Amino acid sequence: MITYKEAINILSNALQPLPDFKMASEQAHGVLAGDVISTEEVPHFSNSAMDGFAVRSVETNGAKTDNPLRLVVRGCILAGELAPEIDQKESCCEIMTGSVMPTGFDAVIPVEQVELIDKDGRAFIVINQSVKSGRNVRFSGEDFKPGQVIAKKGQLLNPHILMAINANRVESVSVYRPPKIGILTTGSELETVNQEENSPTIPNTNGPFLQASIRRMGIPCNGMVSVGDSSQMILEKIQNFMDLESDIIIISGGVSAGKADF
Amino acid sequence: MITYKEAINILSNALQPLPDFKMASEQAHGVLAGDVISTEEVPHFSNSAMDGFAVRSVETNGAKTDNPLRLVVRGCILAGELAPEIDQKESCCEIMTGSVMPTGFDAVIPVEQVELIDKDGRAFIVINQSVKSGRNVRFSGEDFKPGQVIAKKGQLLNPHILMAINANRVESVSVYRPPKIGILTTGSELETVNQEENSPTIPNTNGPFLQASIRRMGIPCNGMVSVGDSSQMILEKIQNFMDLESDIIIISGGVSAGKADF
Repeated sequence: MITYKEAINILSNALQPLPDFKMASEQAHGVLAGDVISTEEVPHFSNSAMDGFAVRSVETNGAKTDNPLRLVVRGCILAGELAPEIDQKESCCEIMTGSVMPTGFDAVIPVEQVELIDKDGRAFIVINQSVKSGRNVRFSGEDFKPGQVIAKKGQLLNPHILMAINANRVESVSVYRPPKIGILTTGSELETVNQEENSPTIPNTNGPFLQASIRRMGIPCNGMVSVGDSSQMILEKIQNFMDLESDIIIISGGVSAGKADF
Repeated sequence: MITYKEAINILSNALQPLPDFKMASEQAHGVLAGDVISTEEVPHFSNSAMDGFAVRSVETNGAKTDNPLRLVVRGCILAGELAPEIDQKESCCEIMTGSVMPTGFDAVIPVEQVELIDKDGRAFIVINQSVKSGRNVRFSGEDFKPGQVIAKKGQLLNPHILMAINANRVESVSVYRPPKIGILTTGSELETVNQEENSPTIPNTNGPFLQASIRRMGIPCNGMVSVGDSSQMILEKIQNFMDLESDIIIISGGVSAGKADF
């Protein structure tokens, strides 16, 4: 009998990687056949993480309840729109979540934390707290920089990794073809359709268990068959799975020191 | 605004269970729509857990290295075969894993732990240890008895539960139809195919994330669409998903206090 370590060595030497192919990132699943590298900054532009007002944080220094600051509202940036140029001091700009930050502005104060005043056709906000630079802003490149590894070869594509890949605008990824797996359960005690009524048989539980486990990994099963304890029939079924180009054949039973173990 | 608890209450009161249907146990997946009850004893008959020799344990009492016991081998039971009747004292029977135990025999000694002797055309084994009653025997009904609950309504069918269901020869189970889930991502900042070149857009990451997460649960997705911040378009897409008889519509975006939140 060979040891576990010897068996692992024999297998490792015989194994070849499965062929790989390209998949659109949006729908990709399986195991990555190569590293995925970022080619751009993510986020691609600095944007607001809140619905509120973009401010220059330095102008808010000293704002308190008994020393409120008043800023003129110069426009509103909706998501997907370009930001206006705002040169005037003591200005702010209404901004929605995901919208691009106007140049020179470095913080967002949420809409719930300001008082909005409309006076003589002009809009102001009243702030009674100082706002730290960077507050509620997702800065360009803060998640990924060009050249950074997003995901590594051999990694299983789970929904979270997919999200990072899509955020980096990677259009397609290289994944390994899933293995073709055949399941062979052996044992004359396993129930089959054309068995004698009174023979002491048991239901085949290993086969459906293995099939369900493989399905859970998102891998299609190349077939499941059951045979009795005949070395010739077992050989024949193994040959069948090899003819179907199975990459893995899982055999249950026939592996001890009994008269029907081969 | 309603509280989280209020929202859960509204949902709980509005929810109806999905229709259920029968599936063959071997292939079943999803959530059980009813308890699964055992109608028989599992194992169905007492059988050997090892390749070895069935013995009457009481006869082995006192067997030691310096007081070995000799038992006549009366036949061999292969898996799936009926057991012979053995009346003679000081007898044993060769038995393979999964084979039915002969009446009156209550233990199995593994083949590796005996010495097999062939003398004048008769076979004996020599045992130099006592064997405890029940050793290496899987007794009838030791896993399940008739009337016992195998799996409960509401349980997700994983491979292990499937194994128990199949071991109990339950041919079909009642499962809920999987929900039809529609995914709607909103936000004018999300990239679409017919957008202006220089608009500050971001890739749609929530949509593919939700779709991959649903796929991982083995539930087919009823579609994924993305719309800009137009209340009319959002309503239209929700209506589309309702026309497709979606059970669940997951909407991402448009849920704060912004100008494009409805």
